Amino acid sequence: MKKIILLIIINLTGVLGFAQEPLTAKYDLMPWPKEIKENKGKFVIDSSLTISITSIKSERVDHAATQFLRRLTNRTGVFLNEGFPLENKKGDIQIQFDAVSKLDIKNNESYTLIVDPSAIKITAKTDVGASRALATLLQLIDNNTTEYFIPGVSITDEPRFVWRGLMIDVSRHFQPIAVLKRNLDAMASMKMNVFHWHLTDDQGIRIESKMYPKLTEQASDGLFYTHEQIKDIVAYADKLGIRVIPEIDVPGHASAFLTAYPELGSKDGYDYQIERFSGVFNPTFNPTIDATYTFLENLFAEITPLFPDEYFHIGGDENEGKHWDESKAIQKFKKKHKLNTNHDLQTYFNVKLEKILNEQGKKLMGWDEIMTPDMPTTAVIHSWRGENEGLAKGGTLIEAAKQGYQTVLSNGFYIDRMQSVVDHYTIEPIGDVKLTEAERERILGGEATMWSELVTPLTIDSRIWPRTAAIAERFWSPKEINNVENMRKRLEVVSFQLEELGLTHIKNRAVILRSMTNNQNITSLLNLSNLCEPLKIYARNLDGIEYKTYSPFNLFADACVADASDALKFNKVASEFVQGGDNKAVIGFFTTWSNDYKSFIQLEKNPKITPLEPLYKNLALVSGLLSEALQTKKISRENLKTIQNTMILLREPVADVELVIVGALNDLTAYCESNYLKK
Amino acid sequence: MKKIILLIIINLTGVLGFAQEPLTAKYDLMPWPKEIKENKGKFVIDSSLTISITSIKSERVDHAATQFLRRLTNRTGVFLNEGFPLENKKGDIQIQFDAVSKLDIKNNESYTLIVDPSAIKITAKTDVGASRALATLLQLIDNNTTEYFIPGVSITDEPRFVWRGLMIDVSRHFQPIAVLKRNLDAMASMKMNVFHWHLTDDQGIRIESKMYPKLTEQASDGLFYTHEQIKDIVAYADKLGIRVIPEIDVPGHASAFLTAYPELGSKDGYDYQIERFSGVFNPTFNPTIDATYTFLENLFAEITPLFPDEYFHIGGDENEGKHWDESKAIQKFKKKHKLNTNHDLQTYFNVKLEKILNEQGKKLMGWDEIMTPDMPTTAVIHSWRGENEGLAKGGTLIEAAKQGYQTVLSNGFYIDRMQSVVDHYTIEPIGDVKLTEAERERILGGEATMWSELVTPLTIDSRIWPRTAAIAERFWSPKEINNVENMRKRLEVVSFQLEELGLTHIKNRAVILRSMTNNQNITSLLNLSNLCEPLKIYARNLDGIEYKTYSPFNLFADACVADASDALKFNKVASEFVQGGDNKAVIGFFTTWSNDYKSFIQLEKNPKITPLEPLYKNLALVSGLLSEALQTKKISRENLKTIQNTMILLREPVADVELVIVGALNDLTAYCESNYLKK
Repeated sequence: MKKIILLIIINLTGVLGFAQEPLTAKYDLMPWPKEIKENKGKFVIDSSLTISITSIKSERVDHAATQFLRRLTNRTGVFLNEGFPLENKKGDIQIQFDAVSKLDIKNNESYTLIVDPSAIKITAKTDVGASRALATLLQLIDNNTTEYFIPGVSITDEPRFVWRGLMIDVSRHFQPIAVLKRNLDAMASMKMNVFHWHLTDDQGIRIESKMYPKLTEQASDGLFYTHEQIKDIVAYADKLGIRVIPEIDVPGHASAFLTAYPELGSKDGYDYQIERFSGVFNPTFNPTIDATYTFLENLFAEITPLFPDEYFHIGGDENEGKHWDESKAIQKFKKKHKLNTNHDLQTYFNVKLEKILNEQGKKLMGWDEIMTPDMPTTAVIHSWRGENEGLAKGGTLIEAAKQGYQTVLSNGFYIDRMQSVVDHYTIEPIGDVKLTEAERERILGGEATMWSELVTPLTIDSRIWPRTAAIAERFWSPKEINNVENMRKRLEVVSFQLEELGLTHIKNRAVILRSMTNNQNITSLLNLSNLCEPLKIYARNLDGIEYKTYSPFNLFADACVADASDALKFNKVASEFVQGGDNKAVIGFFTTWSNDYKSFIQLEKNPKITPLEPLYKNLALVSGLLSEALQTKKISRENLKTIQNTMILLREPVADVELVIVGALNDLTAYCESNYLKK
Repeated sequence: MKKIILLIIINLTGVLGFAQEPLTAKYDLMPWPKEIKENKGKFVIDSSLTISITSIKSERVDHAATQFLRRLTNRTGVFLNEGFPLENKKGDIQIQFDAVSKLDIKNNESYTLIVDPSAIKITAKTDVGASRALATLLQLIDNNTTEYFIPGVSITDEPRFVWRGLMIDVSRHFQPIAVLKRNLDAMASMKMNVFHWHLTDDQGIRIESKMYPKLTEQASDGLFYTHEQIKDIVAYADKLGIRVIPEIDVPGHASAFLTAYPELGSKDGYDYQIERFSGVFNPTFNPTIDATYTFLENLFAEITPLFPDEYFHIGGDENEGKHWDESKAIQKFKKKHKLNTNHDLQTYFNVKLEKILNEQGKKLMGWDEIMTPDMPTTAVIHSWRGENEGLAKGGTLIEAAKQGYQTVLSNGFYIDRMQSVVDHYTIEPIGDVKLTEAERERILGGEATMWSELVTPLTIDSRIWPRTAAIAERFWSPKEINNVENMRKRLEVVSFQLEELGLTHIKNRAVILRSMTNNQNITSLLNLSNLCEPLKIYARNLDGIEYKTYSPFNLFADACVADASDALKFNKVASEFVQGGDNKAVIGFFTTWSNDYKSFIQLEKNPKITPLEPLYKNLALVSGLLSEALQTKKISRENLKTIQNTMILLREPVADVELVIVGALNDLTAYCESNYLKK
C-alpha cells in the first residue's frame, strides 16, 4: 500500500493535476489515469489489426482481448481479418503481464499502455491490470472522416483505492442474471472491482438454499438465483477482475426469512409476510436462541463455498429492536447477560456471527451499526450513515480506520437517492485528514449502493449509470481530478459508450414513453423528460407506502433521470444571459417548448398522460410570455403577474417529478421585472 | 384432430370469415381467434382488480396470471392492491381449467373468454389453454381519456395447427439465455408452442457435453449452454406452454464437430476448423465407421434427458457429399452395401440414427432431404425446400403427409431472407389440396426459421419480430383470416406491445444509429432507415464471404428492417396520387426528406456514415425536383433528365440496403413526364 501513500504525496504537489488539465479536455477517458503523455503520430485501425498475448494463459485477458476486438469492430465498422487474439506470434497490440491475479484486496491492477504508430504495447503485473489497459484503449479510439485510429499516448495507471464497488439490492426488486451481467460489464469498463450482492431483505430471499428450501419456496415469489446461477455470476465477474461479496442481511430486515422460518423470529405468533412496501420493519431474528445460530451457521456453510472471496457481508443495519422490546424472554436474556441496550444485544449477535464466519474462513463485513466497542477489529465496517443519519460529515469511515477496522465508504454514494452526479463526484473520502500509513491502508475504498425499492430491470441501468462512472473515477483516479464541468463532458461520452456495451439506460427511456403514449410520437414527452427529474432523497414513495414492489415502474418519473440534460443546458444559458449574455439560446429553448406543447396536446390522451397536461401547459405559458419579454424587451405588469402565479404551480411536483428549470425561470422573470417592466 | 377438419369445413362456408371482418377492424388481436362476439358494456380496470384460479395447481397459470397483472399494471399505470392471484376466493378475473397439460402434439389449447362488466371468465380444458386466454385478454385492454377497460366480448378459440414453431440458429451467432427467454415470452404472447433450437452447425457447437468435452473446448469459442442452462430454458418454455425440440445437425454442417473430433470426419488428414464464413461446407461425418454411431449414440444419450419432448431433430440437410466422393474407403463401402448414390448413403446413416433415437424414446425429425424411400414413416419430415430449391410450389409438405410421414412446413417461412411480412402471411400451407383425415392430421403445422448468419443479440429481435407474429397467426387462425391490410394494422400494435414485453426490435435501431453517428442527432438517419430495407434473399453477404461471424453487425443495414415503415406509407400515397388523388401527402414526404438531408450533412462524418452520403443527396435531389413539379404542375426537360439519371443511381444497393421507394418515385416521374412536361 506504500505506493498509494506515495501517490498522495505526489498529488499534493499538484504537478500531476495541473499537467493533466489540457488532456482531460482532449480525451474522454474515465476513470482518468494516473499519468498520461502524448506521443507523436497515431495508430491507424484497419482490417489487418491483430492482438497478441505473450504471457501465461489467462481467461481474463483472452476474454478482454476478444471483447475488445468485438467492440472495436462494431464501433468502427472495420471488418477484421482475425477475430481472436493471436497465439505464438506478435500482433499489433501486444499484451504482456507477469501473473494471473488472485482476486483480493492486495491485487495489483496497474498497467502501462504505449500507443505508437506501429504498435500498441500493454504491460502489467497481472492479467487484471492488462484487462484494465484494454478498457482504457477502447476509450481512446477516435476517428476523422476517413479512418479510425488510436492517438499516440503513453499511460501509466493504477488505482487510488483497492475497493471500488457497486452494491445491487436484488431483494426489493429481483434483477435477472442478464441485468447483473451487463452491469458487471459496465463496472469492468469503469475499472470497478467489487460487486456487492445484497441478496436478502424484507421483500424476498434471492438465493437458493438446499438445506432451507422454504426460503425460496415461501419467501421469494419464485424469483431467486440457483447455486448454478450464482456460480455463473461469480465466474463471469472473476473473468472481468471483479470480486463478488454476498450480503445476507441479519438480524433485522428479516421479514422474508421469518416468513419461511417464523420460529426464528423475535415475536411469538407474529404473522410474518413477505413485505410489499418499503421502509424499516420490525421482523428480526431472535438473537437469544440457539436455533438462530444453528440456522445461520448452516446457511453460511452452504453459501460460502459459492463465493470464493474472503469478505462476507452480514448487513446488520437498521434494526430498531421493537420486537426485542416486546418480548419478555428477550428482555430476560438481556438482563441475564448484562446486555443493557438493544445495541449491546446486537453486538452479542454480531460477535457470534463473526466467530462463525471466521471458522468458515471469512471476514465479517457489516453496515456501520456493527461498530461497537466489543466488535473485534477483524470485522470490516461499511460506512453508510452520515449527516442525514445524525452523524458527523463523512460518517464513520475515518473513525473506523482509526479504531483499527478495515472500512469501505458508501455514505455519499447512495445512488438510489436520485441526486445529481455532482453530489457524488465531489465527495472526497479522505480529504485533508491526517492518517498514519496503517490507517490509510485500512480505508479500502468505496461502494455506490443501488437500493432497489423504485427500480426494475427496465430502469435499473438508468439509475446506476452514468452517475456510477463518475463515482468509479472518484475511487480510481487521483483526488485532484475533480473538475465538474470536465467530468460532465467525459461522462456524456462514457454514457453513450455504455449503451454500446449493452446497457439500457438510454434506450429504455423511449420504451417507457412509447408505452405511456400507447405508441404515439414521443418527441414532446422526451423533451419534457429532459427538463424533469424524479423526486429526490426518498421524496418519491414518501414513507414507503405509495409504491408496492409490484406497482408500476414505467411511469413518466421512471423515464426521467437524475441529471436532466436539457435542464442543465438551459440553466447554463439562462445564467449566462442574466449575466449579460445573448438571449438567443434562451429564446430557442422557449420556442422548442411552445412547439412541443402544441405536439403534446395533439396526443390522444389517456390516464397516464393526462396528469402532465397542466405542467406542460404552464411551461408553455411561461415560455411564451418570457420569450415575448426577451424579444420585445418589454413586459406588462399583467404578464409578469401571470408568470409569477404560474411559477408557483410549476414549483409543485407532478407525477413524482420536479421541473428542474424553475430556478432559472425565476431568475429570468426577475431579470425581466428589473429591466423590461413598464414603469 | 377431428375438430380441425370440422373447422376447415365450417370455414369453407365463409360464415366466420365474413362475420369477423368488422371486428378485425375494431380489435387488435393477433393471432385472430376462431370466434368472437361482442357483449354489452365493458369491464373497468381499477386498483381493486383481482385474479383467481379455481383449479388444481399449475405453475403455468400462476406464472401467466402474475405476468398478466404485471403487464396490466405497467401498461395502465394502475396501482393494484393485490399483485398476485388470489387463493380460495373468487376474483374479478376467474380462471378455471380441467387439467395440467402434458406438452405434446395432442395437447388441447382451446379456451373460452367472456368479458362482462362485472367479471371476466376464462375456461379451458388445460392450463395451457387458460394461459392462451390471458394472452388474448392482454391484447383487449383499451382506454379512453379517463380510464382503462376491457371491452365486453365472448371469445371461443383454438388453433388450426398443433405445431406453431420458431427455430433459432444459435450456432452461426450464439444467442445468450436472455435473448432466448425474451423470444419465448414473445412466442407465448403469439400463442406459438414449439421452440426449435438449432444447436450445432459448422460455426460452433453450443451444447455442453460432459462425455465429449472437446466439443465446447475446441469448437464453441467458449459460447455454449451448460446442461443447467438448457434445463432452465426448457423449464421456462414449459411454463409458457412451449415445447423445445433440439437439433443436432448431422451428417453435414459438421465443421465444428470435426474440429473437436477429426477422426469422425470423411476426409483423412483434413484440417477441420470452426467455420467463420457462411454457406454450405464439405466437412461431413463418416457414415461408414462404427465410431460415428457410437459417438452420436452416446451424445444423444447424454442430451435426450435434457429435452423431455418426444421429437428430436437431426438436421440432415445440405450434405453435398464431396468428401464422401473423395474418400476411397467410403466409395468402397457404398459399393459393398449397394448404396448407389450419396443420398442412399445418407439414408443408410439416417435409418441408423432413427433406430438409435427410437431406442432412446425419441422420434427422429429431419429436414426434407431425409425423405427417401427407405426412411421409415416414423420419422418426421421438416419441409424446407420449395421452388427456390428446384421443387414444386409448397415443397414436400403434402407429399410427405401423403406418404405417411408427420410433417412440418418451413418453406415460405424463412424469416432470415428479410422478405416482407406479406410474403410469409400469404403462404397457405394446405390450400385447396384434398386430404384424407389421416393425411391432414399428419400435417402438424409450421415453423419460422431464424438462421443467424447475419444476426447478433443486438439485432435478432428485429429479424424475428414483428413478422413472426403474422406467421403465428397463419398457424393458429382460420385460413380465411388473410386480409393483408388488416393484418398490417394489427401487426403495428402487436409490434409495439412486444416491446412492452421486453423485446428490443424497436429500441435497438436507435442504439445502432447512435453508435454510427458517434452519439449525434439520429433523426435524419432514422428517417432514412424507414425508407430502406436490408438486401433480401441472401443478396447481403453474397456467397457467404462478405461477413465473417465476428464481422460488425451494427451497420446501417442492421438498423433497417424488412418492411420499411415510411416506404410503405409513401408508396401508398404516391400510388393514390398517380391514380388521381391529392398531392399533399407526397409533397409532405419530399419536404421531410429535403430537410432531413440538410440535417444529415450537418453531421460530423465518419467512415460509417460517409457511404450513405450519395444516397441521401440523390434522394434529396429527386425529392426537390419532383416536389417542385408537383407544386408548379410543370417540369422542364432538364429536370426530368436529372431525375431519370439520378433514379439510376438510387436503384443501386448502398451499404447493403436498398431504397424501397424507387418504384413509387419512378411512377411519380412518369406521371410528371406525362402531365407536366413542357412540350
